[in-house]
Amino acid sequence: MSDLTDTIVALSTPPGQGAIGVIRLSGPKAIEISDKVFHGRNLTKVEGHTVHYGKIKDEEGRVIDECLATVFKAPRSYTKEDMVEISCHGSPYILEQVIQLLLRGGARQANKGEFTLRAFLNGQMDLSQAEAVADLIASEGAASHELAMNQMRGGFSDEIRKLRQELIDFAALIELELDFGEEDVEFADRGKLENLVAEIQAVIRKLINSFQLGNVIKNGVATVIAGRPNAGKSTLLNALLNEDRAIVSDIAGTTRDTIEEGLNIKGIQFRLIDTAGIREAQSQIEQLGVDKTMQKISQSTLVIYLFDVTVSKPGDLWEDVDRFLDASKVITANSRQIFVANKMDLNPYTRPEDYYKEGLIAYDNLVTISAKNMMNIEYLKDRLYEAVIKTPDLNDQTIVSNNRHYDALYKSNEALDRVMAGLKGGITGDFIAMDIRQALHHLGEITGQIYTDDLLDSIFGRFCIGK
Amino acid sequence: MSDLTDTIVALSTPPGQGAIGVIRLSGPKAIEISDKVFHGRNLTKVEGHTVHYGKIKDEEGRVIDECLATVFKAPRSYTKEDMVEISCHGSPYILEQVIQLLLRGGARQANKGEFTLRAFLNGQMDLSQAEAVADLIASEGAASHELAMNQMRGGFSDEIRKLRQELIDFAALIELELDFGEEDVEFADRGKLENLVAEIQAVIRKLINSFQLGNVIKNGVATVIAGRPNAGKSTLLNALLNEDRAIVSDIAGTTRDTIEEGLNIKGIQFRLIDTAGIREAQSQIEQLGVDKTMQKISQSTLVIYLFDVTVSKPGDLWEDVDRFLDASKVITANSRQIFVANKMDLNPYTRPEDYYKEGLIAYDNLVTISAKNMMNIEYLKDRLYEAVIKTPDLNDQTIVSNNRHYDALYKSNEALDRVMAGLKGGITGDFIAMDIRQALHHLGEITGQIYTDDLLDSIFGRFCIGK
Repeated sequence: MSDLTDTIVALSTPPGQGAIGVIRLSGPKAIEISDKVFHGRNLTKVEGHTVHYGKIKDEEGRVIDECLATVFKAPRSYTKEDMVEISCHGSPYILEQVIQLLLRGGARQANKGEFTLRAFLNGQMDLSQAEAVADLIASEGAASHELAMNQMRGGFSDEIRKLRQELIDFAALIELELDFGEEDVEFADRGKLENLVAEIQAVIRKLINSFQLGNVIKNGVATVIAGRPNAGKSTLLNALLNEDRAIVSDIAGTTRDTIEEGLNIKGIQFRLIDTAGIREAQSQIEQLGVDKTMQKISQSTLVIYLFDVTVSKPGDLWEDVDRFLDASKVITANSRQIFVANKMDLNPYTRPEDYYKEGLIAYDNLVTISAKNMMNIEYLKDRLYEAVIKTPDLNDQTIVSNNRHYDALYKSNEALDRVMAGLKGGITGDFIAMDIRQALHHLGEITGQIYTDDLLDSIFGRFCIGK
Repeated sequence: MSDLTDTIVALSTPPGQGAIGVIRLSGPKAIEISDKVFHGRNLTKVEGHTVHYGKIKDEEGRVIDECLATVFKAPRSYTKEDMVEISCHGSPYILEQVIQLLLRGGARQANKGEFTLRAFLNGQMDLSQAEAVADLIASEGAASHELAMNQMRGGFSDEIRKLRQELIDFAALIELELDFGEEDVEFADRGKLENLVAEIQAVIRKLINSFQLGNVIKNGVATVIAGRPNAGKSTLLNALLNEDRAIVSDIAGTTRDTIEEGLNIKGIQFRLIDTAGIREAQSQIEQLGVDKTMQKISQSTLVIYLFDVTVSKPGDLWEDVDRFLDASKVITANSRQIFVANKMDLNPYTRPEDYYKEGLIAYDNLVTISAKNMMNIEYLKDRLYEAVIKTPDLNDQTIVSNNRHYDALYKSNEALDRVMAGLKGGITGDFIAMDIRQALHHLGEITGQIYTDDLLDSIFGRFCIGK
């Protein structure tokens, strides 16, 4: 996968008809191969970062398209190689013809993510930055976008590199001792070493802990809306979605599970799961759908329990909630419950505190609304946001959102635990050095200072073709 | 629709996730508006046809994307206006954010085809060329692609302009006579005038006649495959599709009717309609499907009637064909029938001539094959091609493929018929001049020398956004 000697080509814009489609080439012969089929200016003689109008002709001289060719010269390109972007009319037929022509001309069909792989291998970006490119493209909301953008621009990499450097310095001290091993010299004060490891671990643990938030930002917050029939679930759903629905549906390619609606609150994507369908299963096939919903509910992060203040007395509510929690198997440890008293406009003198129940309902998780009149809906949104994001400013911190990074940090931390135990237990330097190398190895995997072909395959295999 | 004073913006690549997405701006403030959000080189100061790397930032300074901006300066651009193309990461979320930012910056969302409309209004291309842009994007095979490409590059326009010029010269002579009307002068020899009109009409009629072919090339050849069960229809279908299926399915966005398969023969698209489903209708809903199929069959251009030589004796075949033609209501005048004798490998001594029937089956429409062994399949394809395309070289002629052009040519020809009748009947010059103006008007509609806003709306409304 990591052969850099050939020239790769792929369609880089989404498939299908459009105004324009862009074909990308990268590699030592990108300009030469393009020039053979491009009739206009001689592309081998133009400057980098210039655009040229011309015709693409096949071997028999037939005009396949009129197009624009943009030339990038190594190392000033995405891949740090010579690159050409050919902007054609957005006809799948034409794009296919042009790609086949370029393949016959000596290019090779690019694998998934191979342009970015080359950018990585050529030192344009490190591995976690490359991964952020895919996250960036997949980002659907402001927060996941910001997370990916920060990571792509190297914020996370800087932090890891700093940690790694500190560990390397630490390792140097230990290894120096090993060189003098027989003489039983201790160059490094053990107490100071412990402090250093503790500091490094504190940072790593902070990063590990940020993963829960990072995961929520990246994948959205699974939010179940529960409650009796006629509590006003649909009205609440509509009230919550009110402004966002148009924007969401504008984004083409948004796939939506039938029972889920997406709601964006301050950039965090909430996936609202309606439980209305649960009661209605009549056939076996329907039951399968219900089972799937129940599974989603049990894995949810947030439960909105809605009740109608004109109907549900406190005792009813408590009973309903107990039954729901029991039936839905919500793992309460993973979920937060927000109780929403609806139809307050019809019962304005309802006393919310009557519904309080120790360990379940209190001031901080009970919200009174009227979904129909849009009363307190914005307040409810704030509460939903706060229930998930306790940090006021996402900009102030590095957040881990990638499973692979989490795993590497976790393993690195384990190795450092052993280092710490070794230091405290007076274990000899060579064992400590081994664990430090282990920790270094895992941190290096994050930025790609250490990698295997399998790792690259698995990372770039998730990219789209042409990126 | 034809306001050129504002600056338009649209996504020009297909919607959905991809490696890159391109946003286009055109208009007097295209560069200024882009420069406000683009942080890198000052775009207002760079040369045209250059590409620049930078960051797109929103009003609060948040980085929305790292991108490439290409600047085109009027009149050296597609629209002949200042243009900017911003190549972003192919995330629908990012593209939406960037477009909204540009809209807030003073651009307006472009209507369908508005970039090409501006190219037309600014004299970059005439109307038939603009229409060819849409045809080019929609082209799915070599022939329709070539047709659109020729038209876009002005071949058809040249022909129409030449005709129009000849008519204008002719009109000048007639109008000159009118100026001297009272004196009963005839500047133009009536015989020579008749010859001139006849010549012009000959060209127009040739264009009109080319429409049938043009339509077939553009929309494909509806081809019905009929025959008894077990005649080998599926095997034939697979044999015919053998090489092409992979290529067809490679092209994303190809929509396919469930009962139709596309087959490309020498660049002509044949839409193969399987009649297998006809017999199987059991419910009312199925019957609706069958009715639709029958309708397609009755409108088909070609019927492949397949029979099994090991089973169907000549008498059986004739009877079957009669029954099929009767039941399917194929308008025989519109369709050509090709009879295909299958399973010749099992009955190699079959004498094809035994199946001949006057006015129905003869040497030139009977093909013997073995679908299973791929015997004579290429020959059958040649025969299918020849049944539709009688012209050996499509390059040698101008072919009309657009309904609107056909209509205009037809009306122009009608007007010229009246001119001819007038000349022959000795009608006075002013009536003849009126009909000539009529003919000129219709020809002018084709190239857009004459147009209305409604016409532009209807033409460009069929374009995609961003073109």
